[in-house]
Amino acid sequence: MKRNIAVLQGDGIGKEVTRGAVEILEAVAQRYGHDFEFQYGEIGGGAIDSTGSPLPDETVEICKNSDAVLLGAVGGPKWDDQPAHLRPERGLLKIRKDLNLYANIRPISYYSSLSESSPLKKEFIEDVDFVIVRELTGGLYFGKPSERVEKEGKEAVVDTLFYQKSEMKRIIELAFSLASERKKKVTSVDKANVLESSRMWRETAEEISKDYPDVTLEHMLVDNAAMQLIKNPKQFDIIVTENMFGDILSDEASVLTGSLGMLPSASISTNGPNLYEPIHGSAPDIAGKNLANPIGTILSAASMLRLSFGLEDEAKAVEQAVETVLEYGLRTGDIANGQPTITSTSEMIAEIKANL
Amino acid sequence: MKRNIAVLQGDGIGKEVTRGAVEILEAVAQRYGHDFEFQYGEIGGGAIDSTGSPLPDETVEICKNSDAVLLGAVGGPKWDDQPAHLRPERGLLKIRKDLNLYANIRPISYYSSLSESSPLKKEFIEDVDFVIVRELTGGLYFGKPSERVEKEGKEAVVDTLFYQKSEMKRIIELAFSLASERKKKVTSVDKANVLESSRMWRETAEEISKDYPDVTLEHMLVDNAAMQLIKNPKQFDIIVTENMFGDILSDEASVLTGSLGMLPSASISTNGPNLYEPIHGSAPDIAGKNLANPIGTILSAASMLRLSFGLEDEAKAVEQAVETVLEYGLRTGDIANGQPTITSTSEMIAEIKANL
Ligand SMILES: CC(C)[C@H](C(=O)O)[C@@H](O)C(=O)O
Ligand SMILES: CC(C)[C@H](C(=O)O)[C@@H](O)C(=O)O
Repeated sequence: MKRNIAVLQGDGIGKEVTRGAVEILEAVAQRYGHDFEFQYGEIGGGAIDSTGSPLPDETVEICKNSDAVLLGAVGGPKWDDQPAHLRPERGLLKIRKDLNLYANIRPISYYSSLSESSPLKKEFIEDVDFVIVRELTGGLYFGKPSERVEKEGKEAVVDTLFYQKSEMKRIIELAFSLASERKKKVTSVDKANVLESSRMWRETAEEISKDYPDVTLEHMLVDNAAMQLIKNPKQFDIIVTENMFGDILSDEASVLTGSLGMLPSASISTNGPNLYEPIHGSAPDIAGKNLANPIGTILSAASMLRLSFGLEDEAKAVEQAVETVLEYGLRTGDIANGQPTITSTSEMIAEIKANL
Repeated sequence: MKRNIAVLQGDGIGKEVTRGAVEILEAVAQRYGHDFEFQYGEIGGGAIDSTGSPLPDETVEICKNSDAVLLGAVGGPKWDDQPAHLRPERGLLKIRKDLNLYANIRPISYYSSLSESSPLKKEFIEDVDFVIVRELTGGLYFGKPSERVEKEGKEAVVDTLFYQKSEMKRIIELAFSLASERKKKVTSVDKANVLESSRMWRETAEEISKDYPDVTLEHMLVDNAAMQLIKNPKQFDIIVTENMFGDILSDEASVLTGSLGMLPSASISTNGPNLYEPIHGSAPDIAGKNLANPIGTILSAASMLRLSFGLEDEAKAVEQAVETVLEYGLRTGDIANGQPTITSTSEMIAEIKANL
């Protein structure tokens, strides 16, 4: 199989971790007889420095001409005081819009070998296995107006939460179709006791649930969801929610099992290549020191193999190699939890490759 | 001292828990020579059933003529399918507006006797002691338009996040003044990398911080705050944030220490009586069974003594009595954590009274 992969390394540890994933993809290609070509594009702070834009047109072109996109992470203190349109995160928001990445999918699962690293007691997180499906191109993130205004001569400000019903439909449908291949439960999160958009969201979920008679639909208010994620995370299978709620809840969920540095994500496009990236950020404090955990990005590459290329065996082989090195006891600093021997980024990559 | 207290029992366990707090307030009055008069008003589902409105005008009058308001909880399955304007929660939203309750204050603190009940490991929650200050009358909760719209012939919906700068100022000022009497740190939570309202919020926080040179101001993005609350809750002193973020984060925070049923809150008015209520809901499943934990409401009454009436000694006496019965090992079901003997609501109230 021949595939073009766009690689956007971004800032901070983005370079090291994407390098790791590319090495693994190359090893997979060799082992299984595929031909993966990698095209590199700039995004984030580095792109601002070299081109003046957090997402140059050239990068968008590279992505559009690819079969899938691999992203590292963006941002860093160097760009924190820039005006909004010159901030690295703008690159992320723009690529989501430009590639129509309407759904962000984040699996949260328990690794028994890492339970020590979790802030939660073992009995609360054992066997946790759920997926957050976050809407990614609507809501408060993109609604207009979003500006300073004057009201009765006084300074004020407005942001706008806007959704088309069709945008709700497609993401909720995706959630149901994922649930129907898993534990058959969808938890739709909203704030229907306050927001009109949430009431439309809830109705839409009800409508779509009719097409999935074997999937149970449950509605949960966002404040309660923030509690339930901690009190009883085992209850969840698929959580689906709008953009801002999804931003907050998916980050909350990512720290439950103590394995933030290991969590992958996939952003699904309506019509073009999907984008795969780890959940963690650019971690400027450890960038370039060979300390970063490359597993989140390597597992994102495994998702790419599965979801974009349909290469289930190859995806499983990568995931299995990761499990194996964890069972050996290899740990980067973020998951070491006091263990004296720390594995470097490059060693971790080499070991995973060796165990493919 | 003579004071009028409005009591809004509400629905579910609201009746039992407010009854407990009233008993304690009466005992305090007797012991310290005060004269507290209680006026009862209806709110929530019960009010809908008897008057057709979740917050009858008469209740608002009773509150406005009082020196402080004590609230139980509202809501229940009976009213879940009502149209929005006939839902119990509307009573809550309306009383916030009618009494100008601009700030909700929720202290989150660790009880060593309850660490067993927490989902978090002891080392993460030991000595946790912070306060969430949530803006309560602005933002997405009240902005207009909030309605269905048609866009290019398609179904869509809009909600509006609106703030006046003066609304931001007064709540952030309150946060700084609280911090200056505590650990001298304010964490201002926003989403300044996406929302214009958050950028105004951040600027406002910077401006106000100039008047409090001894208080450290830190900005935190809301998604990161949702993570940090779990990863390292000890880092916080005062967290201040807008209405919707505050709704989500304060509920998340309330489950960290395993003592949800014990947490009080105070809502501060710009110009009239403050309102005091427990954090927990109306718990319809255990209502009327003498099982509810009355401590959240009793500690809310203690806050009333302190903040509305300036009765610091009396407030401390109530808090001390609560500590004492917990040290004895008295536990309602929610905090029993497997302990075989469960204390009933009425016993718990009687014991706290006896230890005043
Ligand atoms: C950087 C920021 C704009 C972004 C978001 O809020 O979507 C990030 O938090 C994420 O979740 O990918
Ligand atoms: C009932 C609901 C409208 C309310 C809110 O969202 O403010 C509640 O969740 C709370 O936090 O007091």
